[in-house]
Amino acid sequence: MSAEVANPPSRQETRKSAAKRRVPQSKRGAIYRDIREYLAELERRDLLIRVKRLTNKDTEVMPLVRWQFRGLDQAQRKAWLFENLTDSRGRKFDGSVGVALDGASAQVYAAAMGLNSPQDIIKKWLDAQEHPIHPVEVSRDKAPVKEVVITGKEIVAGGGIDKFPVPVTNPGTDASAYFSCPVWITRDPETGVYNVGTYRVMLKAADRAGVMIVTGQDGRIHWEKARALGRPLEAVLCLSPVPALSLCSVAKLRQPEYEVAGALNGAPLELVKAETVDLFIPATAEIAIEGHLRTDVLEMEGPFGEYGGYTGAQDYHIIFEVSAITHRRHPILQAFISEMPPSESSCIRKFGFEGSLRRELAAKVPSLVGVNLFEAIGGSLQVLAISLKRKPDAGETWAALRSAASSMNIPGYKWIIAVNDDIDITDIESVFWAMAWRVQPHRDIQIMRGRPTDLDPSAAPVDSKFTDRVYPDGLGGSQILIDATMKWPYPPVSLPTREHMERARAIWEELGLPKLTPRVPWFGYELGFWPESWDRATKLTTAGRYLEVGSELRALRTKASYCDTGIVEAPEKE
Amino acid sequence: MSAEVANPPSRQETRKSAAKRRVPQSKRGAIYRDIREYLAELERRDLLIRVKRLTNKDTEVMPLVRWQFRGLDQAQRKAWLFENLTDSRGRKFDGSVGVALDGASAQVYAAAMGLNSPQDIIKKWLDAQEHPIHPVEVSRDKAPVKEVVITGKEIVAGGGIDKFPVPVTNPGTDASAYFSCPVWITRDPETGVYNVGTYRVMLKAADRAGVMIVTGQDGRIHWEKARALGRPLEAVLCLSPVPALSLCSVAKLRQPEYEVAGALNGAPLELVKAETVDLFIPATAEIAIEGHLRTDVLEMEGPFGEYGGYTGAQDYHIIFEVSAITHRRHPILQAFISEMPPSESSCIRKFGFEGSLRRELAAKVPSLVGVNLFEAIGGSLQVLAISLKRKPDAGETWAALRSAASSMNIPGYKWIIAVNDDIDITDIESVFWAMAWRVQPHRDIQIMRGRPTDLDPSAAPVDSKFTDRVYPDGLGGSQILIDATMKWPYPPVSLPTREHMERARAIWEELGLPKLTPRVPWFGYELGFWPESWDRATKLTTAGRYLEVGSELRALRTKASYCDTGIVEAPEKE
Repeated sequence: MSAEVANPPSRQETRKSAAKRRVPQSKRGAIYRDIREYLAELERRDLLIRVKRLTNKDTEVMPLVRWQFRGLDQAQRKAWLFENLTDSRGRKFDGSVGVALDGASAQVYAAAMGLNSPQDIIKKWLDAQEHPIHPVEVSRDKAPVKEVVITGKEIVAGGGIDKFPVPVTNPGTDASAYFSCPVWITRDPETGVYNVGTYRVMLKAADRAGVMIVTGQDGRIHWEKARALGRPLEAVLCLSPVPALSLCSVAKLRQPEYEVAGALNGAPLELVKAETVDLFIPATAEIAIEGHLRTDVLEMEGPFGEYGGYTGAQDYHIIFEVSAITHRRHPILQAFISEMPPSESSCIRKFGFEGSLRRELAAKVPSLVGVNLFEAIGGSLQVLAISLKRKPDAGETWAALRSAASSMNIPGYKWIIAVNDDIDITDIESVFWAMAWRVQPHRDIQIMRGRPTDLDPSAAPVDSKFTDRVYPDGLGGSQILIDATMKWPYPPVSLPTREHMERARAIWEELGLPKLTPRVPWFGYELGFWPESWDRATKLTTAGRYLEVGSELRALRTKASYCDTGIVEAPEKE
Repeated sequence: MSAEVANPPSRQETRKSAAKRRVPQSKRGAIYRDIREYLAELERRDLLIRVKRLTNKDTEVMPLVRWQFRGLDQAQRKAWLFENLTDSRGRKFDGSVGVALDGASAQVYAAAMGLNSPQDIIKKWLDAQEHPIHPVEVSRDKAPVKEVVITGKEIVAGGGIDKFPVPVTNPGTDASAYFSCPVWITRDPETGVYNVGTYRVMLKAADRAGVMIVTGQDGRIHWEKARALGRPLEAVLCLSPVPALSLCSVAKLRQPEYEVAGALNGAPLELVKAETVDLFIPATAEIAIEGHLRTDVLEMEGPFGEYGGYTGAQDYHIIFEVSAITHRRHPILQAFISEMPPSESSCIRKFGFEGSLRRELAAKVPSLVGVNLFEAIGGSLQVLAISLKRKPDAGETWAALRSAASSMNIPGYKWIIAVNDDIDITDIESVFWAMAWRVQPHRDIQIMRGRPTDLDPSAAPVDSKFTDRVYPDGLGGSQILIDATMKWPYPPVSLPTREHMERARAIWEELGLPKLTPRVPWFGYELGFWPESWDRATKLTTAGRYLEVGSELRALRTKASYCDTGIVEAPEKE
């Protein structure tokens, strides 16, 4: 790295412009300096479970945390810290493992962002994207990640990457221990622009790992460019940085992750030079593994459980060769609880993707109210609901659907459903109620091919050709876009109106009946169609004068011709 | 009616064959003789709420019961009996109103069938269809429905149909009081075959009501035939019969409702001749309103809240003119809580439709495991899930989807989704998980036009032409059929396997963590694809020997050619 690059360049910057820029060397205002400060805050909020019993990282750690995703409500889920670890070989470890630290629940995620309530998450994402903060460089002696430095032959002699207590995520279906929340740092070989991304890492040897980076991901683009240039890609596998960076790493941002992470964390990210590669890395991370991604050969990798709920296939993937390991003393290794949704990874992806998508749609769709990625059914990827105001302009609903469909360069959303804002987009029952009664399939649904299908087992059999699995028939998989908004004014929701439901609730309580948890909608509301004559008839009815309605309707008769042509004759008096 | 028709003919019988048949005149074994015995049983099961306070039938009764559908879990819902009624005119009533007597919950529905558990409901429906029981005739003096007989001018003088405490279902959005659980009895004018069906009834005068019977319903076919013959259709509006008959009335059966109801109730249904029309009617009903449906003119009817969750439009519909009223002393008037699902009507429809549909599919689809109609999102009509065994024969999934699509002559299901039997078809999240990961939309979805759209507000604006609303463009609305089964063997569900989850649960309990409510799937299971090499690698991994896996994979390398053509070269050793 040349001397003029005082700070790592952002994606939008060339080296030159970066060199000109002066960044204050201060970290004032940082929410968390490192993961240790964050763990203390989680404990203060009663959101951390410390496990002091001896626990086996190969068979017990992850199944234990998994239970809270398959047996507890989201609000009960917490972050976990395992302080006393062994493995199936009977080893002990100098360090601990933190699981579900960022995405145990929306509450934990809010804590990772320094927020008191999950309600502010999307706003903070939008703000951070609007006001990114450039990182700062710190010297080696102020970088905790340099407390221990291991290079050369020491790497293998000391156990290498296997000296850390890397948990087996799905004992019985995974084919190795995996780093499940890796933060990969690479630079575009042509532009020098940094990328920070999360791609699964299979332990293969003390100094070798397998990495899967699917088509379209930024890290893959860097790798393809290095390959075209005929050289390996330098990379650092960073573990347990400040939580803001972990969140950015999985968020599919269009801006530099280092800068957005700074904004999320309230202060410039502290970076330090790597030992053996030309990269700046987070100075307060627990562990950094330096090396290069080979571009000449691939090696078999997997199987490993994936976020859709199925084990991802074994296939040829990238080789990472280690040139240095640096870490803090008694390092804390972070692990995501991923795979079968809901999981930590689906929770984290959800908020990051939503923040990014909302920003993009807001520019094109004035009626946008919100977006929701369904965690449990789609792993926060396959199923997206978009909420629009009651009366979007002509074409706006489809503009929203089409924009969302093409908003990612990775596989992208499969089911995209637009609804009006009286529908609760976080509740799949409410969304499907709109799909049931506001959609005519032949008119309101379009299916579009061209979707990459990495990790989607519906694309092709697991053992079929790689190209068939990632892009069947050369035409790709497909997306289904559904306009479940009202196409015209609807009559009211068929429930008693608010005053009557409130009066009844008072009687309910007077009778001492069980406590109510009202579910939306709990009263009839207008949806645009409510003629004066209906209004009058309903008022007569609640006054007990409904036979007057019947008497008036007597004047509205027509010849019976239901079956042939519908009612077409003029009404006749009798 | 001619003397030889000792018993009302079933649909499959001509008058002649019915006349020859001898039916035992016994009611031995009946589960309930009438609704009063049934109310006693509900009370014994603690499934009945008696309201003794003065309650207004026009504004308070239905909103009060509605709360349990918008504010309680299904298991907490009960049947209600209002014993002290007034109305907005300040009247008092000689009688009571029962609400949600049949479909407050699956538990109440089971009670109506004489079962202890909801689990047996579908089996009982299938049995009753296989073994129908012919009804018996009883004499007038043994028919409680004849305790009070009102004909001629007495009808209007005594208040007619308005003398009963008919509740307003949705105060504020409904345009009159409605009989919400009417049991209509008519006969085919050509064949003499009986039909029993439920069609909404608007009170219009002491001796006149409006009736909506949509296209394709059996009662509508009778009416069309009478109209073609140029005469009115005789009909009896029966209220509060034995619960078995109310259940059959809404079930879209292909067999005679009188006979299936007998089978459900464990004994022949008791029938008696009507006073002024040539029909046999249930002898132990609380109320019978005799008259004719006019076929010469229609009259404006509605609006009234409908089962999809929207107020049904006002339109020209059938006129019912009353010729006699007979009833028990202190009659109990039954009302369904209908409209916005979940509701009593969606609960009742669900089980009846499922019983009928399952019988039909079972004959064509050997892999059939079960069917589920979603109450809350589809009002038990729009959204259907079908469960098939893991490996149906080629074409069987689509045979099931196509059969279900055309199984009803009323509008029929809109969303029809086939899944494998590891998916929980009663849980919309589980079904959508299959839609997300087992479907490629362009390949696995077909949309079919031709669906009638009565009461579906997505078909056309409420105030558009009748024909456009019931059958847009002359081509109808549409159905969407989704094959969400696995098309080939899948890799396992990505969770730790059972032994590891069970071991972790033991540790969970040892740590005194919150009580778990396991949610399916809670462990990784196989879905057909599990090669020997994966099995070996996962076993090495849980033994902590995962670096041996990495060492073996080292031999499986290939030239890097990801981006151009997929991996096509033969593996190379290095």
